[in-house]
Amino acid sequence: VKPRSDSAHPTSEFEYIAWLRSRTPADPRVLVGPGDDCAVLVPPTRPLVVTTDMLMDGVDFVVSEVGMRRAGRKAMAANLSDIAAMAANPIAAVVSVAFHTGAGGAEDLFLGLRDAADAFAVPLVGGDTNSWDQPLVVSVTVLGEATERGAVRRRGARPGDWLFVTGPLGGSILGHHLDFTPRVREALALHAAVDLHAMCDISDGLAADLHHILEESGCGAVVHAKAVPVSSAAKDLSRKTGKSPLEHALGDGEDFELVFAVGAEDGSQLLRQSPVAVTRIGECIDAGLWLEANGKREPLPPRGWVHRLG
Amino acid sequence: VKPRSDSAHPTSEFEYIAWLRSRTPADPRVLVGPGDDCAVLVPPTRPLVVTTDMLMDGVDFVVSEVGMRRAGRKAMAANLSDIAAMAANPIAAVVSVAFHTGAGGAEDLFLGLRDAADAFAVPLVGGDTNSWDQPLVVSVTVLGEATERGAVRRRGARPGDWLFVTGPLGGSILGHHLDFTPRVREALALHAAVDLHAMCDISDGLAADLHHILEESGCGAVVHAKAVPVSSAAKDLSRKTGKSPLEHALGDGEDFELVFAVGAEDGSQLLRQSPVAVTRIGECIDAGLWLEANGKREPLPPRGWVHRLG
Repeated sequence: VKPRSDSAHPTSEFEYIAWLRSRTPADPRVLVGPGDDCAVLVPPTRPLVVTTDMLMDGVDFVVSEVGMRRAGRKAMAANLSDIAAMAANPIAAVVSVAFHTGAGGAEDLFLGLRDAADAFAVPLVGGDTNSWDQPLVVSVTVLGEATERGAVRRRGARPGDWLFVTGPLGGSILGHHLDFTPRVREALALHAAVDLHAMCDISDGLAADLHHILEESGCGAVVHAKAVPVSSAAKDLSRKTGKSPLEHALGDGEDFELVFAVGAEDGSQLLRQSPVAVTRIGECIDAGLWLEANGKREPLPPRGWVHRLG
Repeated sequence: VKPRSDSAHPTSEFEYIAWLRSRTPADPRVLVGPGDDCAVLVPPTRPLVVTTDMLMDGVDFVVSEVGMRRAGRKAMAANLSDIAAMAANPIAAVVSVAFHTGAGGAEDLFLGLRDAADAFAVPLVGGDTNSWDQPLVVSVTVLGEATERGAVRRRGARPGDWLFVTGPLGGSILGHHLDFTPRVREALALHAAVDLHAMCDISDGLAADLHHILEESGCGAVVHAKAVPVSSAAKDLSRKTGKSPLEHALGDGEDFELVFAVGAEDGSQLLRQSPVAVTRIGECIDAGLWLEANGKREPLPPRGWVHRLG
């Protein structure tokens, strides 16, 4: 395996690994970085949080339209959003990739991964580089560490809890799904300020992800239609789709905001003074998932993106 | 997302997740298992070892020939082999998958992953389930914990060291690449018995992987042609390819045995009494990678499988 000297771009996995090792700075948390059989990290002192997310060209983005850098950025950011959902601190990431042979852009993918990781000082400590004749696949695994208050689960919401979201929802497909900022800092700030009973990031869609919380917690919820923050993208999209902006806010996926439940007292404290922008959208009840508008409750179907296997 | 009651097989990612959660036993190391935004683990007390490996249908196996169960088994075992290469203890795994829509076999893939993981008491703590119209992709990340002697790196071999391998090599494509046992136990037993200076698992091929050790260690090696253990598969394959069995043993990938360097004193101890079967194949010298046969040294090209990007 001789390095090609006639090209500025790495053309084999080993040249690529050498290239990215040269761009990986030393980090006191990293005992062994890219280039060995495994990475080795200083062990965390608090519970270890792990998430993995695979993104595919043609499903999660269209590389020919968005470019490799934004594809890489999204792959890392989507994983960091899952770390945020537990209100944990991200500490390291590994990435496995299947490149489309000959398509190029390996460096751009790495730079995009680093764009998102660097924003949270997360070292990229290892990975696996492959190529094939099929579309690009990127799988990221991020490790994190729970705070001293512990990881926040989907389970833990109780009737009487208030429900909040961290930002406007809907219409992510128009661009937000590529350039969102994972709510890592917001989650940590909220977790320090109040007792988060349950939390989830909004990747499948508000109704679907809230449904995840309710299923795990064994309770129900009412969402107030007027309270749901609707993004301007949801309004833009609404003009094309014929669906209402609210429907987009409730059903579209990939907002990568957080939906969480807190006790009523913590809830009113957040309304008075929250460390980050939050919007109260409803409250937990005994059972069911309901949308309340004009004083009337209707069932809110937990629709969202679902990967069909069969 | 209603569970389909008319089918014995999960047809959506949520049914699949519910199915595999029901098959995931409690584990004292696992604080939160599959089904939340992240898994949460009891933190290891010693350095944390991380590896990731992505396998693709048509590249690493042909699903239509080998079936989903063996595909899953290989994906997990290949990752465990990297943990073995550091002489670490595997502690947990996460898996992200892109299934080929409609192809079925999701349960079999999980059972195959578990076949390999269960053999080392490794819990499968989380993952990401996707589907698309392209071939199956499985990406596994395994976490491990270094022993008190530390993780064994590729770097650390020195001139005068003796080189060993843990088993016969070559011809893996005839079947071994699907049913190998990752050398986790062997690595731990060797690490407890002697001071392993450097180690690598043989995934690219003996010459290529030994070359990795030499590059990282900054030394050379001589391999004795007669000493290289040649598998019966290498001999079988030789009859079809016209290459010699030795060439297959030196160049074929996916043996998933270990190649390692120890000091001469530890080396002779292993020859007298090793905790596991090992074969001395040569020794480290100042520079170069050489094959010695009939008293003559020829350069040994570090050829092996390389993913081309350009």
